[in-house]
Amino acid sequence: MTSPASPAPRRAAVVGTGLIGGSIGLALRRLGWHVTGHDQDERSASLARQMGAVDEVGIDPAAEITFIATPVRAVAAAARDALGHGPGIVTDVGSVKGSIVEAIDDPRFLGGHPMAGSEQEGVEGADADLFAGAVWVLTPTAATDDATYATLRGVLTELGADVVALAPEHHDALVAVVSHVPHLTAATLMGLADDRSTEHRALLRLAAGGFRDMTRIASGHPGIWPDICAENRSAILDVLDGLVQSLQDVRSVVADGDRAGLLAVLEQARAARANLPSRLAVSGDLREVRIPVPDRPGVLAEVTTLAGTLDVNIADLEIAHSSEGERGVLILLVEEGEAERLRAGLVGHGFRPAVLPLG
Amino acid sequence: MTSPASPAPRRAAVVGTGLIGGSIGLALRRLGWHVTGHDQDERSASLARQMGAVDEVGIDPAAEITFIATPVRAVAAAARDALGHGPGIVTDVGSVKGSIVEAIDDPRFLGGHPMAGSEQEGVEGADADLFAGAVWVLTPTAATDDATYATLRGVLTELGADVVALAPEHHDALVAVVSHVPHLTAATLMGLADDRSTEHRALLRLAAGGFRDMTRIASGHPGIWPDICAENRSAILDVLDGLVQSLQDVRSVVADGDRAGLLAVLEQARAARANLPSRLAVSGDLREVRIPVPDRPGVLAEVTTLAGTLDVNIADLEIAHSSEGERGVLILLVEEGEAERLRAGLVGHGFRPAVLPLG
Repeated sequence: MTSPASPAPRRAAVVGTGLIGGSIGLALRRLGWHVTGHDQDERSASLARQMGAVDEVGIDPAAEITFIATPVRAVAAAARDALGHGPGIVTDVGSVKGSIVEAIDDPRFLGGHPMAGSEQEGVEGADADLFAGAVWVLTPTAATDDATYATLRGVLTELGADVVALAPEHHDALVAVVSHVPHLTAATLMGLADDRSTEHRALLRLAAGGFRDMTRIASGHPGIWPDICAENRSAILDVLDGLVQSLQDVRSVVADGDRAGLLAVLEQARAARANLPSRLAVSGDLREVRIPVPDRPGVLAEVTTLAGTLDVNIADLEIAHSSEGERGVLILLVEEGEAERLRAGLVGHGFRPAVLPLG
Repeated sequence: MTSPASPAPRRAAVVGTGLIGGSIGLALRRLGWHVTGHDQDERSASLARQMGAVDEVGIDPAAEITFIATPVRAVAAAARDALGHGPGIVTDVGSVKGSIVEAIDDPRFLGGHPMAGSEQEGVEGADADLFAGAVWVLTPTAATDDATYATLRGVLTELGADVVALAPEHHDALVAVVSHVPHLTAATLMGLADDRSTEHRALLRLAAGGFRDMTRIASGHPGIWPDICAENRSAILDVLDGLVQSLQDVRSVVADGDRAGLLAVLEQARAARANLPSRLAVSGDLREVRIPVPDRPGVLAEVTTLAGTLDVNIADLEIAHSSEGERGVLILLVEEGEAERLRAGLVGHGFRPAVLPLG
């Protein structure tokens, strides 16, 4: 890796120069990085270079970080290739994490998923600001090297992302709820309206803002979904079953003319919608949580995924190794209102954290 | 009614000075109308006057048109009151039309539904431009006076609305698909995510743009929905059943790993989403469709709802009564590409239309 004192730029590689890969390239180059891009579609890689999303086309054995931004089914092979090309960190941006992380057991690999996108596809839609304020999930495991996590986390934070650590399977269960099933539902609603519009031509003319909002994601490219549905099948089926059950409950409420029941459903939804976390939730008041940790693999993954699971936002993270080398201190900065939640969770997991005011 | 030569402003009344009623008031006043407003909540009416949405608070027996913009359950009584106050036209803006139109059998009443709104409520959210480019459904029946329809249509067009005539029951079936069930589905998705977030605190933090789009309408005020669900129950239940069936079909496709089946669902949805009519679809090339009509009640309703059902956009409409008084000619301006569809439909209903180039 490039030493911090060197004037040479930090080097990254992007495999798959589509919308996400291209946006990573643009964002890193804006920060002064040198980015090399590869795509099995040579026109895509060439276009990425013309657009300034990458400096050059090819493979970079000296890349400090390689981002695998291929379709989900191609991630594991591409990641293994990249791990073989050089000593750097390898991460991916796939929408499903369990199967990918399980397939690549390497301390230099760390699964990731930026929760940002667009209905567009291809490098033409790439945007250096795509990740500003967006949640970027990382899925460290006991196999993940601490330095891998800390380095990648730092770079993603520089891209403006809000890094949340989750266990791979936990990530998959959650995105089934907030992404995969909503997408399938949008397509289903749109298809239902389309079917009925053959009988009732005027139907789609009546589609006002609410319907357009609800079906917007159905205008995305279908190509990525067979992989996602295959890789995250059980979580998606579980949530689809929950949705069908809930819709049948709503049907009963409507059929029975149960006004109070209907209001309860809608009031819950309204309150929950109003409470969706804003993209930049960090306030000014932070606390330092110092956690003495044994110097064993997996501690950083355990602590950060615990914070993610507890929805505690980590504003900054530092690992202070002790001089004896057997123990270290993990220092997290978290919001004042979330510090106690994290502290209690850590104690429950056998840690002995201290919460201190900043400064 | 005020004669066209008079310098006195045309007069309208609004009953229910909330978001829609207030927006109608603002839009009409901008066109030079005198608007009187009434609301059972005196503070709301008073606020509407302070905001300039109405000229005065009260009842106007001289109103040329009274807009009933109360909650759905109160429309019928308010409309009957307004019909009793003076000789003017009365219309409403309720989201359900069958039960309302059936309850008010008067040639001066014409049901309506502007397909525009907002998550806001109350006159504070009123906007003179709310109806610009929006579809405004009118539901004329055999009982509707031709002059009532022609006058109201002209005024709504001046507000910028795209007027579509549909039979009341047809309207109700269509809005169940594009409005009522999507709303219930958004609330259900939001509720499902909320339920699971109690177990998984991080869940809602992962909600990115697509989920936010899909659940936006769930942030609207629940108060109007018990009425809507009660008045349009059978159409809503029918569409909910269709949605549940379609979701179960999607579930099978996912469970079976049927990639081609999944792509077919998503491709259909994507194509349909891309083909949603734009809000201002009128092109420059119009045709004149001249339809000799017997001078009997209901002809205008029959012709305009036929056009609405066929999704033929009426850019302008004129009724030329013959001097003998027994017959007249109905002149519609429609887009070139839709003229033949309308002509064929009219022939099928026993009319003898002629399609002419403009000018």
